[in-house]
Amino acid sequence: MRNSAEYVSGLMRMKPNLYIGGKKVGRSDPRIKPGINVMSVTFDLAQDPKWAGLLTATSSLTGEKINRFTHLPQNAYDLIQKQKMVRLLCQRVGGCIQRCMGMDAIIALSIATKEIDDKHGTEYHRRFMDYLKVYQQKDLTGACAQTDTKGDRMTRPSEQTDPDAYVHVSEVRDDGIVVRGAKVSITMAAYADEIFVLPTRALRQEDQEYAVAFAIPADWEDVSLITRPVLVRERKECKCPFAEMGVSDSVVVFDNTFIPKERVFMCREWDFGRRLALLFADSHRHSYSGCKPAISDILCGAACLVAEANNIERASHVREKLSQYAGAAELSYAAGVASAVYGEKTSSGTFFPNAIYVNVGRRLTGETIYHEFNLLAEIAGGLAVTLPYEDDFTAEETKEWLEKYIMRNPKVPPDVAHRIWRLVENLLASSMANWYQIAGVHGGGSPIMETIALNQEYDYEAKKNIAKYLAGIDKELEQSKELKQSPTELHQ
Amino acid sequence: MRNSAEYVSGLMRMKPNLYIGGKKVGRSDPRIKPGINVMSVTFDLAQDPKWAGLLTATSSLTGEKINRFTHLPQNAYDLIQKQKMVRLLCQRVGGCIQRCMGMDAIIALSIATKEIDDKHGTEYHRRFMDYLKVYQQKDLTGACAQTDTKGDRMTRPSEQTDPDAYVHVSEVRDDGIVVRGAKVSITMAAYADEIFVLPTRALRQEDQEYAVAFAIPADWEDVSLITRPVLVRERKECKCPFAEMGVSDSVVVFDNTFIPKERVFMCREWDFGRRLALLFADSHRHSYSGCKPAISDILCGAACLVAEANNIERASHVREKLSQYAGAAELSYAAGVASAVYGEKTSSGTFFPNAIYVNVGRRLTGETIYHEFNLLAEIAGGLAVTLPYEDDFTAEETKEWLEKYIMRNPKVPPDVAHRIWRLVENLLASSMANWYQIAGVHGGGSPIMETIALNQEYDYEAKKNIAKYLAGIDKELEQSKELKQSPTELHQ
Amino acid sequence: MRNSAEYVSGLMRMKPNLYIGGKKVGRSDPRIKPGINVMSVTFDLAQDPKWAGLLTATSSLTGEKINRFTHLPQNAYDLIQKQKMVRLLCQRVGGCIQRCMGMDAIIALSIATKEIDDKHGTEYHRRFMDYLKVYQQKDLTGACAQTDTKGDRMTRPSEQTDPDAYVHVSEVRDDGIVVRGAKVSITMAAYADEIFVLPTRALRQEDQEYAVAFAIPADWEDVSLITRPVLVRERKECKCPFAEMGVSDSVVVFDNTFIPKERVFMCREWDFGRRLALLFADSHRHSYSGCKPAISDILCGAACLVAEANNIERASHVREKLSQYAGAAELSYAAGVASAVYGEKTSSGTFFPNAIYVNVGRRLTGETIYHEFNLLAEIAGGLAVTLPYEDDFTAEETKEWLEKYIMRNPKVPPDVAHRIWRLVENLLASSMANWYQIAGVHGGGSPIMETIALNQEYDYEAKKNIAKYLAGIDKELEQSKELKQSPTELHQ
Amino acid sequence: MRNSAEYVSGLMRMKPNLYIGGKKVGRSDPRIKPGINVMSVTFDLAQDPKWAGLLTATSSLTGEKINRFTHLPQNAYDLIQKQKMVRLLCQRVGGCIQRCMGMDAIIALSIATKEIDDKHGTEYHRRFMDYLKVYQQKDLTGACAQTDTKGDRMTRPSEQTDPDAYVHVSEVRDDGIVVRGAKVSITMAAYADEIFVLPTRALRQEDQEYAVAFAIPADWEDVSLITRPVLVRERKECKCPFAEMGVSDSVVVFDNTFIPKERVFMCREWDFGRRLALLFADSHRHSYSGCKPAISDILCGAACLVAEANNIERASHVREKLSQYAGAAELSYAAGVASAVYGEKTSSGTFFPNAIYVNVGRRLTGETIYHEFNLLAEIAGGLAVTLPYEDDFTAEETKEWLEKYIMRNPKVPPDVAHRIWRLVENLLASSMANWYQIAGVHGGGSPIMETIALNQEYDYEAKKNIAKYLAGIDKELEQSKELKQSPTELHQ
Repeated sequence: MRNSAEYVSGLMRMKPNLYIGGKKVGRSDPRIKPGINVMSVTFDLAQDPKWAGLLTATSSLTGEKINRFTHLPQNAYDLIQKQKMVRLLCQRVGGCIQRCMGMDAIIALSIATKEIDDKHGTEYHRRFMDYLKVYQQKDLTGACAQTDTKGDRMTRPSEQTDPDAYVHVSEVRDDGIVVRGAKVSITMAAYADEIFVLPTRALRQEDQEYAVAFAIPADWEDVSLITRPVLVRERKECKCPFAEMGVSDSVVVFDNTFIPKERVFMCREWDFGRRLALLFADSHRHSYSGCKPAISDILCGAACLVAEANNIERASHVREKLSQYAGAAELSYAAGVASAVYGEKTSSGTFFPNAIYVNVGRRLTGETIYHEFNLLAEIAGGLAVTLPYEDDFTAEETKEWLEKYIMRNPKVPPDVAHRIWRLVENLLASSMANWYQIAGVHGGGSPIMETIALNQEYDYEAKKNIAKYLAGIDKELEQSKELKQSPTELHQ
Repeated sequence: MRNSAEYVSGLMRMKPNLYIGGKKVGRSDPRIKPGINVMSVTFDLAQDPKWAGLLTATSSLTGEKINRFTHLPQNAYDLIQKQKMVRLLCQRVGGCIQRCMGMDAIIALSIATKEIDDKHGTEYHRRFMDYLKVYQQKDLTGACAQTDTKGDRMTRPSEQTDPDAYVHVSEVRDDGIVVRGAKVSITMAAYADEIFVLPTRALRQEDQEYAVAFAIPADWEDVSLITRPVLVRERKECKCPFAEMGVSDSVVVFDNTFIPKERVFMCREWDFGRRLALLFADSHRHSYSGCKPAISDILCGAACLVAEANNIERASHVREKLSQYAGAAELSYAAGVASAVYGEKTSSGTFFPNAIYVNVGRRLTGETIYHEFNLLAEIAGGLAVTLPYEDDFTAEETKEWLEKYIMRNPKVPPDVAHRIWRLVENLLASSMANWYQIAGVHGGGSPIMETIALNQEYDYEAKKNIAKYLAGIDKELEQSKELKQSPTELHQ
Repeated sequence: MRNSAEYVSGLMRMKPNLYIGGKKVGRSDPRIKPGINVMSVTFDLAQDPKWAGLLTATSSLTGEKINRFTHLPQNAYDLIQKQKMVRLLCQRVGGCIQRCMGMDAIIALSIATKEIDDKHGTEYHRRFMDYLKVYQQKDLTGACAQTDTKGDRMTRPSEQTDPDAYVHVSEVRDDGIVVRGAKVSITMAAYADEIFVLPTRALRQEDQEYAVAFAIPADWEDVSLITRPVLVRERKECKCPFAEMGVSDSVVVFDNTFIPKERVFMCREWDFGRRLALLFADSHRHSYSGCKPAISDILCGAACLVAEANNIERASHVREKLSQYAGAAELSYAAGVASAVYGEKTSSGTFFPNAIYVNVGRRLTGETIYHEFNLLAEIAGGLAVTLPYEDDFTAEETKEWLEKYIMRNPKVPPDVAHRIWRLVENLLASSMANWYQIAGVHGGGSPIMETIALNQEYDYEAKKNIAKYLAGIDKELEQSKELKQSPTELHQ
Repeated sequence: MRNSAEYVSGLMRMKPNLYIGGKKVGRSDPRIKPGINVMSVTFDLAQDPKWAGLLTATSSLTGEKINRFTHLPQNAYDLIQKQKMVRLLCQRVGGCIQRCMGMDAIIALSIATKEIDDKHGTEYHRRFMDYLKVYQQKDLTGACAQTDTKGDRMTRPSEQTDPDAYVHVSEVRDDGIVVRGAKVSITMAAYADEIFVLPTRALRQEDQEYAVAFAIPADWEDVSLITRPVLVRERKECKCPFAEMGVSDSVVVFDNTFIPKERVFMCREWDFGRRLALLFADSHRHSYSGCKPAISDILCGAACLVAEANNIERASHVREKLSQYAGAAELSYAAGVASAVYGEKTSSGTFFPNAIYVNVGRRLTGETIYHEFNLLAEIAGGLAVTLPYEDDFTAEETKEWLEKYIMRNPKVPPDVAHRIWRLVENLLASSMANWYQIAGVHGGGSPIMETIALNQEYDYEAKKNIAKYLAGIDKELEQSKELKQSPTELHQ
């Protein structure tokens, strides 16, 4: 397993193919540093014996100890540890740990490649497992580029005016394929080692060129990243972990990019477009059952702190609001746990979470995220967005006034109060606030996507049968499907 | 294990001590028949080999096969089976299975008696286990009488104008105790074999006479039940399971009632008032993670059916509403699963669900119940409450008209359409509808009670620590408590 | 103006054409008495000089003093008085005053007949105004039969398998027309003097036979009412206004019914189907801005009372819940006021409320009704549905116990407490409860109908223009339509 | 009336007493320019004859034509025009027009000074009216500094550890008073001509030094403003009105500041603390019934635009979401209209809106603001926060790619699509987004403040009386207070 220094030095050796604000830059650009800081935590804490077994796992491929972010879950316990690891790390970095994208991509690819091979007699699974062995050994990080630009939303890929509206195969050669198109809103691509590319939706035969999956190094030839960094206003004296962290999203452009054969994991198997897209989405929704509770934890913790600073911790309406965080966090966490307990072993050996539970869980979090910001805003008060800049707290002329007037609860000294408000400002009134709101709605699929998934997966017929039985329309009632499922052993 | 005929014949031998509508009646009164029908299902399905291991369990006391309603859960798997059994049976009877009250009472008593003994050197646990052996062997049903009349809500038990506002010990004799007071809103007491009495709240030393727990046969001397039955309008020709089922609640009056020593399980140990009250409440909230999903299943199934009858099944807003049932049902079910996975073995050996998860789950169900009726009402339309009486569908003069005009979807013949609407009417516009709404809010504790429980149990300090770490106030961050918990093996 | 005795004696002279529970009955059937009691209040209070100018108006046709329920609003003040009258009367009868159906029907017909005539050169307006003069002079009550059975919801009237799925013209004669079909969920038809029939939806040319409007006496030949009465459990000793009131809905069957020419107000003018349907709907939604606040008032008042009985009136969560009633009531009331202020004078002279405001107001009430019942249920507690029957409170054996145990707040004596709980039971756990819930969703159009209306009427283009201006796409910004509207004088 | 150039040149003549980021600066600092741009619109549009009568009014003091922002409403029509003006201007500047703060301050002071004088025989009203005459003639802008730093929230002003936690009188001289303390979150103070200071809460006799109100020029001696500007990322080529606008909030420090007698409008009349605080709050809540609908209009318009860009305008879930903006905007607008119609003439002659309606309206907006951002985020998608910087759209290397991939709906050319997404980014993912969210919750008082106000003002006794009447507890029912109110003439 690598440490963060090794990870960073790997990045620094990469070819500059990032564009930020109209300029081509390399991975040393300070604007992506906050994202690199987040990733680094996933390496450093994995070195800490305290987290052995949580941040580390035993590879199902090699039997070696690996970073859990590179591991294929083999049983329900692995899913529960995955969820717990994500929550732990997100608490540490103040939000999105980002690296789960690659983890969910390898999970999805491990399963889909096997299933494609089983149907089509291809050899994607072997290729992918070979690839994955290296990925585990080198302890790589991977972004997952799924969302296409999509062009006209009412039109299928093959019917778009611009054929590049979805990433597609433009040429198949003996040694690989050539692809064109762009993926958008790709988190962490700017400081990932690798980029996984997966289809974004169900496909028909006429869309077959759009059925393509592969992995390439993030600085691969003919791959360009137009990157938008998100970070909070730099702290000068009042440093803290939260302010060191951030994220970047990229438009990843493939402009006749060549992908070597060994790195191609799907090519024209349109009948698996939906399956692969959903495998990644559902696995990523499972990750949300770890990260989103952590975001509730952070907002809840900040709300507790600022309530203390305001000395309103015992106010009845504040208590009620705090308890809403408990509900939001633990219901989505519970959905993750249930998805493991009622998960299934796939033909590839990878253990996969139950689709119903990951979808009800993820939808809940997408529906409540803005409300959770609202709760903190209500408890904090307007100062969250009107707090003078840090410099005013240190400038000679204004320092004394601000220290005097930031005091509320006599038990909270001015410097602590200042730190509390500064954190609240970062959480509620910064670029990160907006990013968490919008990613909280859309990351892993917005509520409408989970509703669609539920409407496809949920066994409404079984419910209808219950009603028919109770109404006297049917005389017998079979036990409904979801009650037939057995909980899985939690192999520890 | 008894069958339902044995259960019913037992009831018929009981002394009449019910009052309904101003008259003293026995258990043969037709108005409590619907409740007896519900209980009967718990006996009959347990006889069916198909449900062996779900409706039955192996007694931890005797090693014998018993009805799971009389079983003390020994591990997480038992809790998961308990939850599943409840959901299954509730789907069968169209709602509340009722018998879980006794099950949750024995769970609570098994734990609390051990803990009281460990502290106070009493012998309640032995007494209770002796009692329980008979309870299991005779396959008894028990109501749990917890809610006191409470008098002035702003005043503690010992400070009430009327000392009987809470059930209390009025005399301690060598051979037992004498109690006074009344318990209200006691579901199924009118057709239970036994009544368990537990304290309803935290107590102080001055309230010690109110710390009392015991079990007595439901027709015990000086016990009177003033009973309010709830049932739907009787069907004449259009019979169906739903219309056969119902419930009764009673005011249970103890008027200087003598309780023999061997049936007393707590007497003046005020320091365990809160513990015992919460053990029952939390165990019962766990049961709700089984029953409430079933109620969502039923409403969802009826909504699917009536949408089909209206031929609006594919309408986008209908689909969206249906998916809300999936969310409500499965999130609360997931909370139950998580409460098992993160449950704990108590000193008594009984395995107990995690308090956080049962509370977030139960609160969710209490908050959404009216909304779920609202959804069905929206999909069904006004006919749910304006449907002519059954007799008009059979009377010669009106039959033809109504059969003609009940038709909507040409694929749903008039008699089926009539049955669908009749079920919808029963669900939305009957005494049962109101009962499910109000019990859905208050049974096992209303949302405000779960909020209070969460505010006592949830580890807000751990959340604060996260915020302090991120704000730079604390340099170190310990892993928070909930992440330290290990999932429990699901011993199958 | 009639008094209630005159109204009732008129009813008693009607031909029996009601079917209830399989039997043909007349207007003296005790099951419709509660509905008659409601209507009677509209007559009796109009006699009271205290309400002159509110319950009475000056006829725009004859200059005579008439009951406001028969009046065509001439200006914004009339709409504000209409709204206020409805709120006042609904407070009196504990809910729906019912008689506004006829009022909204005459408003809609007065406008549509004029517009049809203006386009088609017909003479409906003269006919209708002649009819209305008599209606005003005789102080009649009218039900409005709008909702058809509708058959397959995905199919237009003329495409239905059964042509009678919507009421339609089956023959046109010199002296009138013959109609077939049935209207469902027709409130108060069973004790109305007259029944107005209006189309329920937009129509195309091929649907022209379905474009029909008329008025007939409720006991007219070949008109049958299959009636479902809704009432609360009869009180024996504990009498009160609420328990005297109720409602009935009918399926109104037209089986080749002849309608004389002078009573036909639309016949085949399909291009006005939508207009007339919406005129009634929007006018009725305006009435909801009076009645729904009253329902909130009643639930709020009961919640205050029961909170007092529980002595939890000052609890913070109770106070918060009570304030939600203020929000629900006054926002919908405000929508009614705004609809008057920004209403418009139609070509007929009738003053009509603004469609946007009546729709946002009515939708709000439809969305909150179940929640308002939920609030009361939360404050009241489970006793609302477990309260023993009235007879148990008077029977010798149980009276003393119940009087003792109904006491909570020492300041509320047992008989008052009993009355409070009995009202709460009637409100939350009776047939009326269900009726108010479902009528609260669907009466005047369910929320989805208002959403559709808003999406047709709301000026989204104006909003888009604002965004285009702010985005720099358009250089100029015209004042948007809604800001160009002038408030109307409130002629008093 | 001034034009914007005159207003700006006035600002430029002011003494520098702003601190931004640790430096003292003057009104020419570019970071406050966006706020000045907002204010300028209130001057320039008032010059436009098109808006005469809306942006202008006839002074009740001098009979001269004045900017409506300096006008005291004399009747309901004035309130309706005030509301409409605010909505119009907010649509223009893309959100908060800011200048209403001063308008609401003069309204509050005009009323309170009269009432204080009437009780205490003081001369504040004359002083204030003299002051106001000049304010109107010079067409000044005023910030209203109400919110104190408040110190410990559980402690009254006179009991605070730091006596300066609330602004107070520290010395009374013959020629004026000396004040100390600070006001926080004071919007527009940095570019206002004047600052009004009002008490923030109810006071007791011991708090009398905290009962103080006055007005001073914003650059007055011993007044310092520590200012936090809020603005969006500067546009380079893709200019637009939205990006020119912004806001600043200040901590306004009074460090032994002398206030001349003629500018003091309250001094130690503690019994009017609550009254004056509420007069401003309620008047400002009335202003919100104009501005908040405009914010809904803007978000709705942007949602329509981006839905068009995504070509999902006709999708059912999008339509439903758009209609929610109609509900939010028009219900709060309606509350404003009703508050005018049921407003009252105060003893000062100023016409004041009804407190119930302004509070239910403002609370609604405070409760929905985050949700409205959520709606736009859902419709827009993740690109709102991952959109590359403007420079990447113009840089040679990336321009072509981005223009290609920003295209979705073929009918929306790339430059328009870019402008739409840029606006959406500004609305959802900028400092302004956070400011509108938090100001939307707290400006004019957060929902909890309106709940408190409603619980003080709403006539719950009248509701209780209704329930008592219906329950048979009281035999008579008086018409409740709110039904006795008469609507006010809308004098045009």
